[in-house]
Amino acid sequence: MGVVIALDKKRKPQTSIDRLLGLVKDDMADLNTIIIEKSKSDVDRIPEIAHHLIDSGGKRLRPILTIATAQMLGYREKEHVKLAASVEFLHTATLLHDDVVDESDKRRGKQTARLIWGNLASVLVGDYLLGQAFKMMVEVGSLEALDILSSAAATIAEGEVLQIIIAKNTDTTEDKYLTVINAKTAALFSAAAEIGAVIAKASESQKAALRSYGKNLGIAFQLIDDALDYSGDEKSLGKAVGDDFREGKITLPIVLSYRRGNVKEQEFWRKTIQNGDLQDGDLEQAISLMKKHDAIQDTVKRARHYGAMAIDALAIFPESEHKKALMETVEFCISRTH
Amino acid sequence: MGVVIALDKKRKPQTSIDRLLGLVKDDMADLNTIIIEKSKSDVDRIPEIAHHLIDSGGKRLRPILTIATAQMLGYREKEHVKLAASVEFLHTATLLHDDVVDESDKRRGKQTARLIWGNLASVLVGDYLLGQAFKMMVEVGSLEALDILSSAAATIAEGEVLQIIIAKNTDTTEDKYLTVINAKTAALFSAAAEIGAVIAKASESQKAALRSYGKNLGIAFQLIDDALDYSGDEKSLGKAVGDDFREGKITLPIVLSYRRGNVKEQEFWRKTIQNGDLQDGDLEQAISLMKKHDAIQDTVKRARHYGAMAIDALAIFPESEHKKALMETVEFCISRTH
Repeated sequence: MGVVIALDKKRKPQTSIDRLLGLVKDDMADLNTIIIEKSKSDVDRIPEIAHHLIDSGGKRLRPILTIATAQMLGYREKEHVKLAASVEFLHTATLLHDDVVDESDKRRGKQTARLIWGNLASVLVGDYLLGQAFKMMVEVGSLEALDILSSAAATIAEGEVLQIIIAKNTDTTEDKYLTVINAKTAALFSAAAEIGAVIAKASESQKAALRSYGKNLGIAFQLIDDALDYSGDEKSLGKAVGDDFREGKITLPIVLSYRRGNVKEQEFWRKTIQNGDLQDGDLEQAISLMKKHDAIQDTVKRARHYGAMAIDALAIFPESEHKKALMETVEFCISRTH
Repeated sequence: MGVVIALDKKRKPQTSIDRLLGLVKDDMADLNTIIIEKSKSDVDRIPEIAHHLIDSGGKRLRPILTIATAQMLGYREKEHVKLAASVEFLHTATLLHDDVVDESDKRRGKQTARLIWGNLASVLVGDYLLGQAFKMMVEVGSLEALDILSSAAATIAEGEVLQIIIAKNTDTTEDKYLTVINAKTAALFSAAAEIGAVIAKASESQKAALRSYGKNLGIAFQLIDDALDYSGDEKSLGKAVGDDFREGKITLPIVLSYRRGNVKEQEFWRKTIQNGDLQDGDLEQAISLMKKHDAIQDTVKRARHYGAMAIDALAIFPESEHKKALMETVEFCISRTH
């Protein structure tokens, strides 16, 4: 099919999100102020833990989506920044709970909160941020945005539970895996993009378009994450290559390699992923099987498919700097190296 | 002072909440239906875990408060039941997260979810129920109720974090301890009682009265819990006497005993609570020191003080079956044996 694969020297020149960042710059400064303000607490430990993660240099892609979509639709007030902050808090809460669930030691190149302060504080600070997120949404007062974000919160948790259930099951189908990432990643991207339209009082079809844009961008984003875990550069990635493998986490590269593998290869995946029996050289063996079956390249190919759907979802909007920036963001997410 | 202490044969005849239960009976049946409906998920594990706790025979005191206060103020629609279900979900989510935080093995006489399904599933099912709780509140559409409940959610998490920070610190003052239980227990009682008034479109002073009633009832309820942990009947309690002691959890009986104790006794508390160095006979020694200093009796006395404030808060309401039932509930919470 001749698709250019974004994981080696054949990579296309890296697309940038500079246009997007330029457009949202002022609002992002306000976002930062709100985030600092709302993670305060009389209990000092709470902002300490919250900021450990919030300040760790995440791309803030989700709140940016809210801000950019609201701007694109001509919204001129300031409430979208509060909604964007809610999105970031929801996301941060999820990460805090995730690191406990995954027993992760590193995130974004830093020690995880759970390693420094313990699982328990991570769970509770996550809960605190969830509460603060809902308080901010209430301040904005849009029941429609509240509905979208509370549904997303429930869906994310459902996706995480499903992921635990299928974890280590090498029989997982691509469809089942898509159900998981739809819930655990795409739901919040989708909600983030849609509420920008909601606050801007956009039409139903505009809201649906941005919901679809966010959802497909989220799936593409997650699939690239999965591919990078086996092919990325550790330094720019901020975490070790092969983390998913060592944790026995089923992701698309494994789903594809397992299903395309022969009996002996399937035996290898069951030993390493299902039974967690890892030896020196197993990660290299896993990557070599993935290469043999084009599993990483095809994961990126799949990501491109969802990326294309995200871009098509934007077709109904007239040309604008914002539309261009949102389209470039898709390409950026797919061609990123970290 | 001649206060009758509710922990031995001198106990007053047990007050009942039968009047309250009779008044809310029909709505509670609806509540049950909603709870079953809203804990459904395509991911089977979620209702399985949710029901493990939801069906375990808790008193459902918090949602009852919402239903009873709405009824007392003449509310005749059905939305209060959804708000009550949100309160119960918030509470259940807190318990799921709590058991992880406290590493508890038993709750209400059953194995805890975390022991059966693991910490991780408990955290995530808690998150799911939180999401569902907010979705239900959004359905009701009262931004005021949403504000009250999301503030309570953040406050509860703050209280839990604070409790972890002071945990094992025998120097904790009674004031500091009150700050903790205000946040971790009283905030939800207070919110539950107030939103009944909100949905019934009650006046500001009525809302304030019920907020105060719920808060003081919640403090009294928690203090009795603390006392029962050292004096209750294991069978009706559904958990072992001395759990708090074994976990090194600071509660009012310890705060009082420590502060009233001599140097040697304080040494004992530091050894057992602060350093977690427990030997056979230490629990008996702890209880005997509490008896020596009237610490359990005085904890109940303190509970009576807050109970009295709860009852006085109701003074502005005209006499009614509901008011009588809410007053009896205070007495019930204080004189309960489990």
